[in-house]
Amino acid sequence: MKSEIIAVGSEMLTPWRQDTNSLYLTQKLNEIGVTVAFKTIVGDRRKDLIGAIRTALGRTDVLILVGGLGPTEDDLTREAVAEALSLTLRRDASQVAALHARAAAWRIPMPANNLKQADVLEGATLMANPNGSAPGQWLDATFGGYRKLILLVPGPPAECRPLFDAECVPRLRAAVPERSIARRTLRAAMIPESQADKLLAPIYTAYADVETTILAHCGDIQLILLCSNSNAAAAKQRVDELAGRLEEALEDWLYSSEGESLEQIVLYYLGLRQATLAVAESCTGGMLAERITSVPGSSRSFLGGVVVYSDELKTAFANVPPELIAQHGAVSAEVVQALAAGIRLRTGATLGVGVTGIAGPTGGIESKPVGRVHIAVSDAQKTESIERTFRGDRTRIRQWTTQQALDLVRRRLM
Amino acid sequence: MKSEIIAVGSEMLTPWRQDTNSLYLTQKLNEIGVTVAFKTIVGDRRKDLIGAIRTALGRTDVLILVGGLGPTEDDLTREAVAEALSLTLRRDASQVAALHARAAAWRIPMPANNLKQADVLEGATLMANPNGSAPGQWLDATFGGYRKLILLVPGPPAECRPLFDAECVPRLRAAVPERSIARRTLRAAMIPESQADKLLAPIYTAYADVETTILAHCGDIQLILLCSNSNAAAAKQRVDELAGRLEEALEDWLYSSEGESLEQIVLYYLGLRQATLAVAESCTGGMLAERITSVPGSSRSFLGGVVVYSDELKTAFANVPPELIAQHGAVSAEVVQALAAGIRLRTGATLGVGVTGIAGPTGGIESKPVGRVHIAVSDAQKTESIERTFRGDRTRIRQWTTQQALDLVRRRLM
Repeated sequence: MKSEIIAVGSEMLTPWRQDTNSLYLTQKLNEIGVTVAFKTIVGDRRKDLIGAIRTALGRTDVLILVGGLGPTEDDLTREAVAEALSLTLRRDASQVAALHARAAAWRIPMPANNLKQADVLEGATLMANPNGSAPGQWLDATFGGYRKLILLVPGPPAECRPLFDAECVPRLRAAVPERSIARRTLRAAMIPESQADKLLAPIYTAYADVETTILAHCGDIQLILLCSNSNAAAAKQRVDELAGRLEEALEDWLYSSEGESLEQIVLYYLGLRQATLAVAESCTGGMLAERITSVPGSSRSFLGGVVVYSDELKTAFANVPPELIAQHGAVSAEVVQALAAGIRLRTGATLGVGVTGIAGPTGGIESKPVGRVHIAVSDAQKTESIERTFRGDRTRIRQWTTQQALDLVRRRLM
Repeated sequence: MKSEIIAVGSEMLTPWRQDTNSLYLTQKLNEIGVTVAFKTIVGDRRKDLIGAIRTALGRTDVLILVGGLGPTEDDLTREAVAEALSLTLRRDASQVAALHARAAAWRIPMPANNLKQADVLEGATLMANPNGSAPGQWLDATFGGYRKLILLVPGPPAECRPLFDAECVPRLRAAVPERSIARRTLRAAMIPESQADKLLAPIYTAYADVETTILAHCGDIQLILLCSNSNAAAAKQRVDELAGRLEEALEDWLYSSEGESLEQIVLYYLGLRQATLAVAESCTGGMLAERITSVPGSSRSFLGGVVVYSDELKTAFANVPPELIAQHGAVSAEVVQALAAGIRLRTGATLGVGVTGIAGPTGGIESKPVGRVHIAVSDAQKTESIERTFRGDRTRIRQWTTQQALDLVRRRLM
């Protein structure tokens, strides 16, 4: 079954705002077995909106209109659907009462215009919106002789998403032929991109019934496997079989079989080993600590860290001997190993990590170009470091570096 | 003049990929005086694409097709435009030669299918693509009796954007009535949202000829002012006049009149005062240091910081007396002031910042709920702290907290 999502709102036709609801809705629709064939973004202009609705109904079976349900003059979705399908709008008395009660409870004035939120399309069912004033509407209609499902949902993500889950998904499930969707997400770190393609493409292209999406970002690869089948067990079996073959090919680049992030995996291993971690960062400037602490509960294994931009602080907080910096420079294997060993000693952590490098855009020289980084991991047995040269802008170089650091910790813990 | 952007590619109809080129193109189009009335995303299906092209030509004057120009079977944009407008495609001999030369230079095989990239629409002009194999095409055509400009540009951002700037913008400028665009971006920090609305709406709504967009995110507000006029000086005068009135209303919430980030402004003031900064973070876990060090050249004023998740590290790295933590708890005014003063002392920085709080989702109690944070700034004269309770998930609470901390530093430096 084919669907179209129309996002309504002039702000999404500026260079600064993007429709993001449709990504969420697409995932939910795909899980029911409904594909998204078109996405349209249209402004708050009556004529444009009516035209877009008619176009959508001419080419798809399910139309989801997101936004334009509020109380202002710019909110035209109800009126436009009525005009596009020659339906009447009636003002619902219980909705009017609910709007008055809401205004009274919040002690806010209730302009007459607000009441348009109580207008219901002929033949439509209201869908409750506990997070806002405008309810959604579900319309099972006929257009050009064909049955069409038309859903009106509010635009603010905090209203749109819960309403779609609670009200639209069950109704759609009942209305469309049943499909089961199996899904798995595998993740791998720091695998060279050319290698990934060569390794993986021959495997997943042999599974034509499993849709494989590969997302790559700064040393992180996600493989999303999706199989739609009328039989749930058959869908799961195909996805698991492909996942098993991909996992084998990925060897120890694979860090997650169920979609967990690299930070989560590192914290999981730390917990398993009853180990603690501390970091000393120079060029990543806190990004490594920030990534680790973005995981709730990270305080159980992560003691803390230092951001040592100046040479003096490398000495003061991580015991790096000033002579070492003078002799080898701050961006060197010697200094990064001292950082990792020093922060471990100073914090009493099981594992210490050191990071130093040149994030750019300036500060590079021929022997130490922008993107050159050193990363070290230290435990009671040994301190080891690697040197890498990453490409891209300051942000990307820092992201690659933190990814590499987390992966080194993972490998040390494995 | 109205335009539509059609992004072509099935991957943009999945839950994981989004069209982002259109934001860039919209900005460039707006600067020429072309508005974007519709954005459509369509998959790699011939029939869908032809339909979308005809719909677009029926409702706008300028159609920009992004993607679908590559060598694979899925790349159908050229063929679809030809069919939608009943035009022929001819294979361009010099393009064929260029494709062969490119393959030879890169020592890659050249499948016959690749040659479709040399197919040119009847009446179209090729637009050079120095970053890829498929050139763009510019077509000045007639559809339904009206003049239509149709632009075919490649999808990869690294090809799309330079080609649009170099080839499309000058041609569009020559083809559409001349307009000048003046633009200003004002930024303000930590202004309560209700206050912002009440203060600003009466001012900017009086300037109907200036388009005002307000973007709010975790304590940061951007006001983007845009005026399009046939006279450049008149456009600039209107934007500057409105900007002046808004700046006055925003008082000291305003931190930037030219769009700089709060991090940049803080570093600017630090440089001006020849002051240095160091931070001691608990709940923000490195995010504050990360934000500051995301700015190139930040090492001139930012010495570094510590991420002190454990109580022991608060003492070891920022001199917080253990009794103070025992008596008041780690999330308290007393401890955050000790953090700020301690990190200043330990690093020798002019200014020390301390942050402590409960980022959630767990760990809150009735007297100290999730979202409660304390932030302190310390200099040679005094150490002061504030208490705030932010709402949202872990990420948002941490973002609000770092924004508040940066704003406190800005105010101390002003």
